[in-house]
Amino acid sequence: MSNVHKFSGSGNAFFWDDVPGEKLSEEGLKNITKHVVIGEKEGAPHFFMRYFHVEPHGHSRLERHPQEHEVIVLHGHGQVRIAEETIDIAPFDVVFIEGNELHQFVNPGEQSLGFICVIPRNI
Amino acid sequence: MSNVHKFSGSGNAFFWDDVPGEKLSEEGLKNITKHVVIGEKEGAPHFFMRYFHVEPHGHSRLERHPQEHEVIVLHGHGQVRIAEETIDIAPFDVVFIEGNELHQFVNPGEQSLGFICVIPRNI
Repeated sequence: MSNVHKFSGSGNAFFWDDVPGEKLSEEGLKNITKHVVIGEKEGAPHFFMRYFHVEPHGHSRLERHPQEHEVIVLHGHGQVRIAEETIDIAPFDVVFIEGNELHQFVNPGEQSLGFICVIPRNI
Repeated sequence: MSNVHKFSGSGNAFFWDDVPGEKLSEEGLKNITKHVVIGEKEGAPHFFMRYFHVEPHGHSRLERHPQEHEVIVLHGHGQVRIAEETIDIAPFDVVFIEGNELHQFVNPGEQSLGFICVIPRNI
């Protein structure tokens, strides 16, 4: 069903009505929280939109998988590693990571980093 | 191929390196420019990420189509019409419009409105 999640955060604190945050605890990642803003619950048929909040010195897992990522940074500064390259990222930078590419998002700074990441529902 | 488009705008002017803006001129829409930030050119296999810039008093077309939309507002204020309902939208609000739902984005104000809209590549 169609749906609006109003933004309820402020400053670098990003929250949406009716969207819980899930602190991730898998091995290889650090200080990172996931908010599924459009997913299973909303009935998204083909791709899911998630927001990731990376606290200072946090990072996602260095990984590769068949699914591509389509990313836009909302706030903060950090780096994305793609294969052997490391690129600085800042607000509204757009990142496309193709399937099976080695990648990692890193926040080496003292401010939080937040980005939207869209991923296919099933591959 | 994986790819980063650095944001090159400022304030309410939104631009990215190597992403042309296309002023839309189809019937039923007004004052709206599309930037495909991840699309055919980047080799996105399943869904495309576009940025829409709606100038004051502009709007998208009131339409329905099989493809769903996944939207996040980046700046400005406006309204989304979904079926018979009209909802105010503001920065970082998230909108899911399911396939075949009647919808329209409207900027009735005096500032520009900008949002990301993700759509499946083929349906």
